[in-house]
Amino acid sequence: MAKELTSRAENYSQWYNDLVIKADLAENSAVRGCMVIKPYGYAIWERMRDELDRMFKETGHVNAYFPLFIPKSFLSKEADHVEGFAKECAVVTHYRLKQNPDGPGVVVDPEAKLEEELIVRPTSETIIWSTYKNWIHSYRDLPILCNQWANVVRWEMRTRLFLRTAEFLWQEGHTAHATEAEAVEETVKMLHVYGDFAEKFLAIPVIRGVKSANERFAGALETYCIEALMQDGKALQAGTSHFLGQNFAKAFDVTFMNKENKQELVWATSWGVSTRLMGALIMTHSDDNGLVLPPTLAPIQVVIVPIYKTEEQLNAIREKVDALSAELKAAGIRVKFDDDDTKKPGWKFAEYELKGVPVRLAMGARDLENNTVEVARRDTLTKETVSFDGLVGYIQNLLTEVQNNIFQKAVDYRASVTREVNSYEEFKVEIEKGGFLLCHWDGTPETEELIKQETKATIRCIPLEGDKTPGVCVVTGKPSKQRVVFARAY
Amino acid sequence: MAKELTSRAENYSQWYNDLVIKADLAENSAVRGCMVIKPYGYAIWERMRDELDRMFKETGHVNAYFPLFIPKSFLSKEADHVEGFAKECAVVTHYRLKQNPDGPGVVVDPEAKLEEELIVRPTSETIIWSTYKNWIHSYRDLPILCNQWANVVRWEMRTRLFLRTAEFLWQEGHTAHATEAEAVEETVKMLHVYGDFAEKFLAIPVIRGVKSANERFAGALETYCIEALMQDGKALQAGTSHFLGQNFAKAFDVTFMNKENKQELVWATSWGVSTRLMGALIMTHSDDNGLVLPPTLAPIQVVIVPIYKTEEQLNAIREKVDALSAELKAAGIRVKFDDDDTKKPGWKFAEYELKGVPVRLAMGARDLENNTVEVARRDTLTKETVSFDGLVGYIQNLLTEVQNNIFQKAVDYRASVTREVNSYEEFKVEIEKGGFLLCHWDGTPETEELIKQETKATIRCIPLEGDKTPGVCVVTGKPSKQRVVFARAY
Repeated sequence: MAKELTSRAENYSQWYNDLVIKADLAENSAVRGCMVIKPYGYAIWERMRDELDRMFKETGHVNAYFPLFIPKSFLSKEADHVEGFAKECAVVTHYRLKQNPDGPGVVVDPEAKLEEELIVRPTSETIIWSTYKNWIHSYRDLPILCNQWANVVRWEMRTRLFLRTAEFLWQEGHTAHATEAEAVEETVKMLHVYGDFAEKFLAIPVIRGVKSANERFAGALETYCIEALMQDGKALQAGTSHFLGQNFAKAFDVTFMNKENKQELVWATSWGVSTRLMGALIMTHSDDNGLVLPPTLAPIQVVIVPIYKTEEQLNAIREKVDALSAELKAAGIRVKFDDDDTKKPGWKFAEYELKGVPVRLAMGARDLENNTVEVARRDTLTKETVSFDGLVGYIQNLLTEVQNNIFQKAVDYRASVTREVNSYEEFKVEIEKGGFLLCHWDGTPETEELIKQETKATIRCIPLEGDKTPGVCVVTGKPSKQRVVFARAY
Repeated sequence: MAKELTSRAENYSQWYNDLVIKADLAENSAVRGCMVIKPYGYAIWERMRDELDRMFKETGHVNAYFPLFIPKSFLSKEADHVEGFAKECAVVTHYRLKQNPDGPGVVVDPEAKLEEELIVRPTSETIIWSTYKNWIHSYRDLPILCNQWANVVRWEMRTRLFLRTAEFLWQEGHTAHATEAEAVEETVKMLHVYGDFAEKFLAIPVIRGVKSANERFAGALETYCIEALMQDGKALQAGTSHFLGQNFAKAFDVTFMNKENKQELVWATSWGVSTRLMGALIMTHSDDNGLVLPPTLAPIQVVIVPIYKTEEQLNAIREKVDALSAELKAAGIRVKFDDDDTKKPGWKFAEYELKGVPVRLAMGARDLENNTVEVARRDTLTKETVSFDGLVGYIQNLLTEVQNNIFQKAVDYRASVTREVNSYEEFKVEIEKGGFLLCHWDGTPETEELIKQETKATIRCIPLEGDKTPGVCVVTGKPSKQRVVFARAY
């Protein structure tokens, strides 16, 4: 088989790279660190985007669009923010090319140098808050609940398709509020939108929590996050929601007249998820045969493969399948009939397994006689023969079952590698096995940094739910309010 | 009234600028030439995008995403192409900032200079064809029918919101074909997709035609276009579809093995429309009171304004309106009930007129008694009192009628300023009055250039439909195959 993957056991990292390429999701481009998202991968991303967009609108948000470029001086206005992003900025310095006077091709025209350099946005807080300054005068102008779908650039030195690329696609919500309480409420609300989206739509179980100070977004007072666990036992941050306090309002002098006619600084949040979710999706569900997609996201939910020897058989199959396809489509199911006669059924089976199509139907001469069809599930790799009568209802139920099953499988896997550890010795042994370690920590950046240096593990989050029993830090023995989640992470 | 517009008669250009700002569609940003698309403007753009995306998918296209950056050497590979775009390229030269050693803020780190400069895409033919090289080996890999929704940057010196901005949003289709005939067919097919979209969805009548050589896309063998006419008599190119021949296949060495086992160069098309359509929309339909939106595009299709003195009256109105709103929503109509008690009805009327809401309902105490409602049309500014019974059906019909009426109005206006001219003297007089001039031209770039220099008019297109009678050129008297469309243009 030409498209065989490296197995996860053999080399997990290579398995991931193989899968992204061979399932036609994305590839590296000629531009270092920038990816091409191929049509099949983009179709999955489009479904994520549409569902999130629906959820954002349902919670009162609107979309807008802000400039790609940020004047260098804007980026500098919030001290922590610029420190966090300065090292990975793509900088536009000129606005024209000209014929090379000394040879073929074109060169940058030195006369077209910008007075102030422009940064390709790594995130848009600064350009957006410089804009909000003009939108906000009174409490009546608040809240502002804007989101934008955009590309951003962070010049990463070590890149991996979807997980870490110089350019990526994302959405970034930027909201402005009259009170601290309202901004915190918004931050938490969006965390839960992300959490629900991850679990119900992507079938990825996540821990909802708060980042430690070390892991906070540059410029935030508090960063909330959803943390997922990949099949190799490493954690992946799947979305963040930041309470920005009044930091950006201060930096851009954004004030409003409150109901008591007094000037106040505006409160801010920002929140985002990106094409990184594609990486989380792949690494949560897929197996050595290829992608496993939740039905919610699968561009093709049901593929039908005819098995025939004669043109006559194919025509008889086609007649039955056309009626079935129409019914499935009417029920809102995305179905494809693959009657390409240049490929053998076995090739097609492998191909759709690789592409993660949740349900495959095969129909041959005997099925025609018996009024049956062979139904294969991608998630369990099981097959059964099912009557053609009532098939649409059967498939609808099956798709729901597949969605629930792959979620439950991920929940079970996570449970199997999540455990409490109660001493630093134990921690050092257990961290080598991967998974989430729940342990007590004294709350200081110093202890967190020590653990990171010695074990490569970081605090993924201080979870919002679950056991809140106090204890003592595994490293220092100082008091700890609750267990936190440690892991090695992507 | 705070939001009064300059009238079209007084200053058309100022009217346009006022309207874009005051209707909350877009504004200039702190970055020269880049706009902020505000939520109300973006909601309209989203509807355009969704409808086009649907039409592209219906005609067999898929979406993908290609890098924002193009290596400078790629842009140079197609000679006409680089000549067309070199003068307006934003160039990334560095990938890092650092603390300013001589003062506050950050500076570009001179040690982080790119080996090869990157161009922020002005259009993506080069990066896409360098990618297609690896996707295409055999005739079985063809056709490729990709589209991408993206931002692009062309460093324009004189910018205007939506019409000409340094950064804009667009879609660019890039297709690859085995034969010339198939590529030409695709080019024409997409021209008609654009034409149908403009007329049926945007209610903007357009002429479908072919550009003269002078006006062709840089790198194309033939550029097809749709040309619209604005209310000031100036033309606006609203979409283009390019037959690129084998130019980009040659530049990037993209060949395929044909059915006869011979290597051949691949044939290409590209086609795009942009946020410029927002400008066309505004300038085709709107009036001195503000926006006029076709119901297809209006974020709010029906607004309901209560007119009341007492809380009791408001509650009685609300009860009726809630039931109506539910019915309208069930019928797929976007409706808003504006019961904001800090604004007077007169203020709301003006505001929704400015925002172009197609249908406004007003309901007061007398309407309650009489079981009626006042219905106001934005397009005709007429009002009538209508029974509440059967109102949903009435409104559905009305929205269709409004859509048809604003299209017909634009058709009629265009007809009134489109005329044949038969001498260059007549041409020079008539061009001052604006509109489309249909006249004979000898087919040479020299004559076209002369006319442009002397009258500022350009050939908008050689129309595909209509009168094909030959004649003689108004300037040179040489033979002409058919009349072409001249106008001054945006």
